[in-house]
Amino acid sequence: MIHKHLSQVPGTVIEKSGFRGMTARFALTADDGCPRYAMRVMEFEPGGYTSLHSHPEEHEFYFLEGKAAVVGADGSEVEATSGSMIYVAPGEVHQLKNIGCGTMRVVCTIPILPGGDGKTTGHGYE
Amino acid sequence: MIHKHLSQVPGTVIEKSGFRGMTARFALTADDGCPRYAMRVMEFEPGGYTSLHSHPEEHEFYFLEGKAAVVGADGSEVEATSGSMIYVAPGEVHQLKNIGCGTMRVVCTIPILPGGDGKTTGHGYE
Repeated sequence: MIHKHLSQVPGTVIEKSGFRGMTARFALTADDGCPRYAMRVMEFEPGGYTSLHSHPEEHEFYFLEGKAAVVGADGSEVEATSGSMIYVAPGEVHQLKNIGCGTMRVVCTIPILPGGDGKTTGHGYE
Repeated sequence: MIHKHLSQVPGTVIEKSGFRGMTARFALTADDGCPRYAMRVMEFEPGGYTSLHSHPEEHEFYFLEGKAAVVGADGSEVEATSGSMIYVAPGEVHQLKNIGCGTMRVVCTIPILPGGDGKTTGHGYE
């Protein structure tokens, strides 16, 4: 059994093109021996966002705090708040935005595909 | 994209032997097209618990609310509160108990193994 508290998991500021004001906390990943999927917590500053992007991995999100918009391929937006759960299918285009006044925090799970580690995306094309 | 709010996901009272005061909300499962793992939210009344049990599926927990004890095979207990994340390996014996005064709520993820649906456990022995 592995136990970590969010407050002890270091944050990594994501500096990918098209991302702004997002910090990732890689809580349970391949580094911890997780065999199939990873649990991360993503934090967005007010005004923070990801790019509109896709990858072969699906997401299952649980929104903890704040007010988010999740944008789809056609530009439609779904609003998410504490208690919202969103499934994004493999290859589905998506974007997360913090549209609230405070920090937006979300549990972001992702499969660990062959060649992946649960931290980065874009694996599984083998 | 699928969006559900916890308040809209019906609860199922778990009446398995050795379980008490536990309600499962099966939020994102094989029924929703999730291909690899499922997201459920488990709620425990004060004094509620699971049995000390194991199954071939691992768990990755994110604790939302309340005060929990997670018991291991040797009887040792790990305390978990909001922001705690716990990994239980495939086949590892574990028990969850609500040791607080209010509802204990936890995001409970689990792989969907062959023959499984993300709701029940004990699959994968194929």
